[in-house]
Amino acid sequence: MEITTKKSIESIARTIRGLSIDGVQAANSGHPGLPLGCADLGALLYSSILKHDPADSGWADRDRFVLSAGHGSMLLYSLLHLFGYGLPIEDLKRFRQLGSLCPGHPEFGLTNGVEMTTGPLGAGFATAVGIALAETVNASRFNTSAHKVVDHFTYVLAGDGCLMEGVSSEAASLAGHLGLGKLIVFYDSNHITIEGGTDLAFSESVAKRFEAYNWQVQLSDGYDLETIEAAVLRAQSETGKPSLIILNTTIGKGSPNRAGTHEIHGTPLGPDEVKATKLAIGLDPEKFFQVSDADYAFTANVAKAGAKAHEAWDSVFASWAKANPEKKKEWDISYGTRHADIAWPKFEVGSKLATRAASGQCLQAIAAAMPWVIGGSADLAPSNNTNLKGLGDYQKENRAGRNLHFGVREHAMGSAINGITLHGGLTAYGATFMVFADYMRPTIRLAAIMRIPSIFVFTHDSFQVGEDGPTHQPVEQLASLRIIPGLEVLRPADSEETALAWELALKKRSGHHTRANVGDRVATGIEFDPENGPSVLALTRQNLSVFAKPEGWKADVAHFGAYVVRAQKNPDVILLATGSEVGILLNAAELLTNKGKRVQVLSVPSLERFRKARKDGTLPSSFLPAKAVLYVVEAGHYLSWAGFVDEEHFIGLSRFGESGKAEELAVYFGITPDAVVELVEKN
Amino acid sequence: MEITTKKSIESIARTIRGLSIDGVQAANSGHPGLPLGCADLGALLYSSILKHDPADSGWADRDRFVLSAGHGSMLLYSLLHLFGYGLPIEDLKRFRQLGSLCPGHPEFGLTNGVEMTTGPLGAGFATAVGIALAETVNASRFNTSAHKVVDHFTYVLAGDGCLMEGVSSEAASLAGHLGLGKLIVFYDSNHITIEGGTDLAFSESVAKRFEAYNWQVQLSDGYDLETIEAAVLRAQSETGKPSLIILNTTIGKGSPNRAGTHEIHGTPLGPDEVKATKLAIGLDPEKFFQVSDADYAFTANVAKAGAKAHEAWDSVFASWAKANPEKKKEWDISYGTRHADIAWPKFEVGSKLATRAASGQCLQAIAAAMPWVIGGSADLAPSNNTNLKGLGDYQKENRAGRNLHFGVREHAMGSAINGITLHGGLTAYGATFMVFADYMRPTIRLAAIMRIPSIFVFTHDSFQVGEDGPTHQPVEQLASLRIIPGLEVLRPADSEETALAWELALKKRSGHHTRANVGDRVATGIEFDPENGPSVLALTRQNLSVFAKPEGWKADVAHFGAYVVRAQKNPDVILLATGSEVGILLNAAELLTNKGKRVQVLSVPSLERFRKARKDGTLPSSFLPAKAVLYVVEAGHYLSWAGFVDEEHFIGLSRFGESGKAEELAVYFGITPDAVVELVEKN
Repeated sequence: MEITTKKSIESIARTIRGLSIDGVQAANSGHPGLPLGCADLGALLYSSILKHDPADSGWADRDRFVLSAGHGSMLLYSLLHLFGYGLPIEDLKRFRQLGSLCPGHPEFGLTNGVEMTTGPLGAGFATAVGIALAETVNASRFNTSAHKVVDHFTYVLAGDGCLMEGVSSEAASLAGHLGLGKLIVFYDSNHITIEGGTDLAFSESVAKRFEAYNWQVQLSDGYDLETIEAAVLRAQSETGKPSLIILNTTIGKGSPNRAGTHEIHGTPLGPDEVKATKLAIGLDPEKFFQVSDADYAFTANVAKAGAKAHEAWDSVFASWAKANPEKKKEWDISYGTRHADIAWPKFEVGSKLATRAASGQCLQAIAAAMPWVIGGSADLAPSNNTNLKGLGDYQKENRAGRNLHFGVREHAMGSAINGITLHGGLTAYGATFMVFADYMRPTIRLAAIMRIPSIFVFTHDSFQVGEDGPTHQPVEQLASLRIIPGLEVLRPADSEETALAWELALKKRSGHHTRANVGDRVATGIEFDPENGPSVLALTRQNLSVFAKPEGWKADVAHFGAYVVRAQKNPDVILLATGSEVGILLNAAELLTNKGKRVQVLSVPSLERFRKARKDGTLPSSFLPAKAVLYVVEAGHYLSWAGFVDEEHFIGLSRFGESGKAEELAVYFGITPDAVVELVEKN
Repeated sequence: MEITTKKSIESIARTIRGLSIDGVQAANSGHPGLPLGCADLGALLYSSILKHDPADSGWADRDRFVLSAGHGSMLLYSLLHLFGYGLPIEDLKRFRQLGSLCPGHPEFGLTNGVEMTTGPLGAGFATAVGIALAETVNASRFNTSAHKVVDHFTYVLAGDGCLMEGVSSEAASLAGHLGLGKLIVFYDSNHITIEGGTDLAFSESVAKRFEAYNWQVQLSDGYDLETIEAAVLRAQSETGKPSLIILNTTIGKGSPNRAGTHEIHGTPLGPDEVKATKLAIGLDPEKFFQVSDADYAFTANVAKAGAKAHEAWDSVFASWAKANPEKKKEWDISYGTRHADIAWPKFEVGSKLATRAASGQCLQAIAAAMPWVIGGSADLAPSNNTNLKGLGDYQKENRAGRNLHFGVREHAMGSAINGITLHGGLTAYGATFMVFADYMRPTIRLAAIMRIPSIFVFTHDSFQVGEDGPTHQPVEQLASLRIIPGLEVLRPADSEETALAWELALKKRSGHHTRANVGDRVATGIEFDPENGPSVLALTRQNLSVFAKPEGWKADVAHFGAYVVRAQKNPDVILLATGSEVGILLNAAELLTNKGKRVQVLSVPSLERFRKARKDGTLPSSFLPAKAVLYVVEAGHYLSWAGFVDEEHFIGLSRFGESGKAEELAVYFGITPDAVVELVEKN
């Protein structure tokens, strides 16, 4: 490393330390420990390791950097400000304040240059595995022997907390298995956690563990720039294994009286220690948010070099595009609209098929039309019907395989799906039994916070799982998923609705909630938006009959989340259901009609759209005519339907299930056409 | 091993194989792969390794056996039937049928001898860590140099799926750190998962990984009884480390045409292969559910030996009791009522304290009065206020320490809390931020399914977390926890309510849902029961004022989940809230009174009890007089309050939060006394 470069990077590190402690002190809240401890690494990364063009944070082939230890957000904000990502220093001064571009934890879509929302520990690490995986997929799709247009690294900075979380264990095992050689994780090993030393609870050998996962593991000093750089070079040249670089660091480094203590993790230094720290590291103790002209000049040069690298890539890309027009076309769609016309399978009215099986048929059609679609299951592909036939298994030796095998690792799967989605150029789905949505809930929540169009396929969506019993029968899962803000839960009632559910999920894009002011955020924060965010497909294990649909039903679902399956003028009774219970209502309607009732039936594949339409006042009056009595049937917890009907007009399941034959359970729990008739007649 | 014993165990293994494939075939559903693959281990364990007395499955010092791979339930049912746990063969014949004592996955409290409910993978492994931990705690509390009254092993049978799940990684790291030498895990390494070979997704070195966790690791043949036994002896003699015995097994062993395939994991063999298997292993191919007289004679002898071991322990226990009357007294309470009078801290009306801080004070009083209470946090003890002052850290070197340090491992923490609770003789709590309840949701659900009184302390229970932003602010968590059937979420409004919440949580016992018939189960399945099941304490980060309470408020909360904080004759307006929002309502009530409104205010620390009382018709009419308009304020998702008010009469938060000062966010989100006044005046 040139001596002048080294000095510049050291200055940047100093400046980061100053900005970070000033930001935390101004907020009187936040985490100074990590930015102080990792300032040198951060400065080195952004100065001379990352391939990035601050003028275009969306450059498809940029290196990704994920701050998995998201509480150290001032490190990232300092870097984004210094290196020209257009983050004003005023926002750093308003760190953690309402409306600032520097919230407590980094937020994707809000602050330019933030690759993902982090904070919940382990999530960044596990998501980065998906990002790195996506790189290999698109490298395999687009690169040729003459041109490499996809060729970037994914860097992660993770702390002790990230590595203690089970999700990172799952993801690390998967990454090692898949040989994701371009994933490089820095482990900020500072021996300190919130409760005290890591020896309180964490005495395993992280190095040996990662070697067991088949990672390259290196130990490095955390502050010698040349040593770190050498480790990175070794990591880069190991193409068959992901790399862990264990940095021996000191939390709060630079603070004369608090470095190396657990208090500095998440407590402002206080004015005196801020001064003392500045003095100790060579900053003016009386100045705040100091950045020297030399710093700006250096980072401007770095940005210029980045822009040049980007230009060089552009020219490679242009040659590649010329030589490979078909690939270029696919690239444009993959990184653009991700739209294609799909030859959906035809489903005969009256035919019987589980929606998971219909979904499996749809997936074949989707995969054929959309080469950017990949996905898989947490070891339940045969049950989830998610296998893409003849399209190969994605493995170390086969990056072109489109079936992902996540193993029994739901949480890592969800994170990887988010990572693939964040990478760009791909659409990804991950599947498991609905009851195990609980295992991956934190990552579904993160997808919703980020408003990214991840697709989660949850089959076996009710007590109709049958014999596997209460541990495997979802009861509260539907409702608990629906209350994650911004998440859409699509629960199709037959094969045709299943195809439509896929269509709606595939249409979604990433939400843009960058804000110029708080007002923008209010709007995006409050409303469910059918155009973006993650989707859940809730699918049955059991067969359902395909029923006849009225004209325009698809548009109705898209606009209102529901449609009238069985229309009735001036109905006395309106029956609403989702998924497998729609068929029950159609049978119940016949029985009730025979008893002289006038019955209308609605299917509600998307309760989110339905609620929104009702709230917006756009719901056609023919859907829920005023005088009729409303009943809802859904094999899940009542609370989903709050505000539509009271519990006395609801048939469902708000208790744990039982092990038994599905048909017997239906009778036992009273989720049958007869039970509906009985309830309607009682009222 | 004596040759006759060996032959008897081999016969038992054969019989297990026959029973298991017959059970699965009769159900035409279930998992034959594991029982066939692990029959020999199971037979060996119950014959000559486990210290158990089938006549008393509640013997405090029995060895525990947890079938973490719960889908292999027919193995366990076969063993429980054969060894005299009173499980009729008729139930095995009705495997997986409604009302059978042999449901699809083993259920604690339903089938005698089942130590815990398993099925969700990894859960058994992680819970067993808690069981083993509890053993060391009680050994340290009760054993003397002269007498050992707590001295048992905890055995686990885990499969590939269990070891891929992150929760087992967390738990294994913790167990290694804590040196739980009496935990012995058998890993059924059969190289097969549902999607195919484990090489599809799981190529790490499990042995090296567990060595990195500081476990003793052995490889063993899965079928040579002497080899397995020798491995167990080595595991038992390693007292400083938990042990992993990796058994090289064949899934479906014994099935001539299906052994070693992934199909046999969860698919019945079919009548022909059932016959072929019986023929191959030496059973009569024409007979079903065969048990020889010799088998019963052998297991009766094993049971007799177990009863003798129990008697021997009884006599040691009697001597110990005589020599240590104080310890005996503590034992009786610990394993019995777990009741003690607590000198609760006094809280002055008007004083301000966060409920997390009040909880911290309560915990000191609880711990002083109840030596059987232990607990800790997932590395947030200083924030959760869960540290028991002066009571030491539980570590390898200090089994008497009462503060557990779980590290940043919420899921393993929840599982360990369940395990400690299941072990008996202890009350355990685990703490984290409420938003991270999502990380441990599967284990909370299991506690609820098992109806065990685990206590989960979730602080930072609303957007009032403030600056940490949306990733750290719970929005949907309150509602999503409340819909887990049988779980009680206690959300105290001030310090005094916090003490009461602890009192209610500490009073709970394990629910008994053993059933003679399906009818019993209906009752236990449907109703929330304040006497048993797990509790969540939802506590604030921010200060709350202690307010004056009416007489009898504690009894009201216990019976009705709520009480009238501010009584008003013939009110126009009734305001309901929980937790931090009660104080807001008390302020709003003053403002509204000044405007001529007649306002009653209720605090609802337990919505579960409140709902139940309303449903049961026991709610005093003075609580919710008919003519008044009801409003609810809660800093969480609306859906919790379905059925009480519509959304127009609710103030809360159904969108993700924001990073900012708590006070500013309150104004921004409209959760203030002024906002309440505005809403009431608008309607």
